[in-house]
Amino acid sequence: MDTINRISDFINSEIAAISYPAEPSGLYKPIQYTLAGGGKRLRPTLLLLSCEAFGKDFKFALPQALGIEIYHNFTLLHDDVMDHADLRRGRPTVHRRWNEATAILSGDAMLTLATQYIVKNAGEKTARVLDVFNRMAIDVYEGQQFDMDFENHNDVTLNEYLNMIRLKTSVLLGCACEIGAIMADAPQPDVERLRHMAIDMGVAFQLQDDYLDTFGDPSTFGKQIGGDIVNAKKTALLIIAAKRDPSIYTLINSDIDDDEKITAVTRMFISTEAVDECRKMIDDYAHKAIDTLDSVNIGEDAKAHFRKLIEKCSVRNV
Amino acid sequence: MDTINRISDFINSEIAAISYPAEPSGLYKPIQYTLAGGGKRLRPTLLLLSCEAFGKDFKFALPQALGIEIYHNFTLLHDDVMDHADLRRGRPTVHRRWNEATAILSGDAMLTLATQYIVKNAGEKTARVLDVFNRMAIDVYEGQQFDMDFENHNDVTLNEYLNMIRLKTSVLLGCACEIGAIMADAPQPDVERLRHMAIDMGVAFQLQDDYLDTFGDPSTFGKQIGGDIVNAKKTALLIIAAKRDPSIYTLINSDIDDDEKITAVTRMFISTEAVDECRKMIDDYAHKAIDTLDSVNIGEDAKAHFRKLIEKCSVRNV
Repeated sequence: MDTINRISDFINSEIAAISYPAEPSGLYKPIQYTLAGGGKRLRPTLLLLSCEAFGKDFKFALPQALGIEIYHNFTLLHDDVMDHADLRRGRPTVHRRWNEATAILSGDAMLTLATQYIVKNAGEKTARVLDVFNRMAIDVYEGQQFDMDFENHNDVTLNEYLNMIRLKTSVLLGCACEIGAIMADAPQPDVERLRHMAIDMGVAFQLQDDYLDTFGDPSTFGKQIGGDIVNAKKTALLIIAAKRDPSIYTLINSDIDDDEKITAVTRMFISTEAVDECRKMIDDYAHKAIDTLDSVNIGEDAKAHFRKLIEKCSVRNV
Repeated sequence: MDTINRISDFINSEIAAISYPAEPSGLYKPIQYTLAGGGKRLRPTLLLLSCEAFGKDFKFALPQALGIEIYHNFTLLHDDVMDHADLRRGRPTVHRRWNEATAILSGDAMLTLATQYIVKNAGEKTARVLDVFNRMAIDVYEGQQFDMDFENHNDVTLNEYLNMIRLKTSVLLGCACEIGAIMADAPQPDVERLRHMAIDMGVAFQLQDDYLDTFGDPSTFGKQIGGDIVNAKKTALLIIAAKRDPSIYTLINSDIDDDEKITAVTRMFISTEAVDECRKMIDDYAHKAIDTLDSVNIGEDAKAHFRKLIEKCSVRNV
């Protein structure tokens, strides 16, 4: 089994081993349920790889890895309430399985729990690690707010969109690498480089997610193909296509049948070459991430793991 | 002007002076709105008094005082969403003035903001102060969950109720005193004593709040008298009365007219002597708080301020 799978298995077993107070079960059961939902465990994997890359046993940063994964799942839990989503990773969302109050309160507790893990055993690095974590968290809320704001605007620019996904998605990956590297006492310039690598990787990851939402293989994607089109979501594809043919907004906001809309909008993504532009952007961000990675002072083995993750994020078809 | 008013004015002006990023305004305006809502500023006042009691200028703990007040307002903001409350301190709640997603997200940001303030300038005390804060926060979520759980049970005992208000209300007052004292390098036994004082004070405060909800002066209470009865809330009054006459649950859960119900239930609170028992409990907790206060090694001036707050919480009629 390769290192990445070994680390992700380790994270899963450590998450399963977290013990919670028995009462009030209405608070703790939804947290356990949320964390047992699986997912790629990309963020804690990045964190542990970053720690190991600088010569420390990756287990040293386990509390921080759990903290970052709990934080990520907290954002998903609250986002699902805000978006009125019914399903997450094939299971009912917490506010559907329990109720909204439970989802809000359990999420709040997860944010505090994440903060507790982030500083656990951090010793004299406590203030620094916490500061990195809190600034990341504020960025993520700003990103989520911009994402919600964009719903009501047809004039979102590509730069505004890229800034939003950087805040909402990428900085969390950047923070994971930063904290992992800090825990291993990495030199500050390398911490910064690894962080930038992860941020570009995150943008590629999110653009790829947008791409797959329309052009993914239904048998492997896991979500309904065309969901973004049905929700008229301002993705890179839509923004680029609209710049070339603004009539796509009329089409995507019309009340024609969903399947018909998906087919017609997809066709416009292709005819305007928005899809080619989007694929090019994904490649560019992935290459930028790999270039930055090359400049980090870590061993070839470590680089190979990060490179594998960058490739997975930018060419993945699931 | 006395010290308590001077400190509370200082807190108000410092809260008003907090600057927020201009964008996304959908995230920051609700935070500003929430914090401008006023209130007694009891928690930051306790924190600053605790700092000053041990010989440090109270301004030294200003970031922590702001952190504790932001945390308190975050819990009110999310509680209002969970309770579907329309008004808070005479103004529309955030989820009514904006929407639910905004209320959830702004609250999340307030929790992170509070954490940032709690550790600001804490230096080598960072890990300790943060640990106290995070453990308090978990207690508060547990208290809120028990409070919600109680809605569906008619067999809540007085001890269960007292434990719930200790978690939901008192530990935050205890935490305020604890952090203020820690910031002033108070000896650990005194930190503990001050914390216990604040916890008993908090129980008296919440029992008084329950009492006033039924027996307060409508012209000064600020809320609708009888709200707890209309909502069949398990308060100390109801639990004690039910122990003596269980038929009160039938009455309070019946669908008779609100005013009629308030009158009939209030009469039972009096006839069962639940109201006398409740007043006695308030006095007992207030006296216990004053006894503990007497054992803390601080000056008479400082003690006088705390005593004044304990009295305000236990005999206040607003």
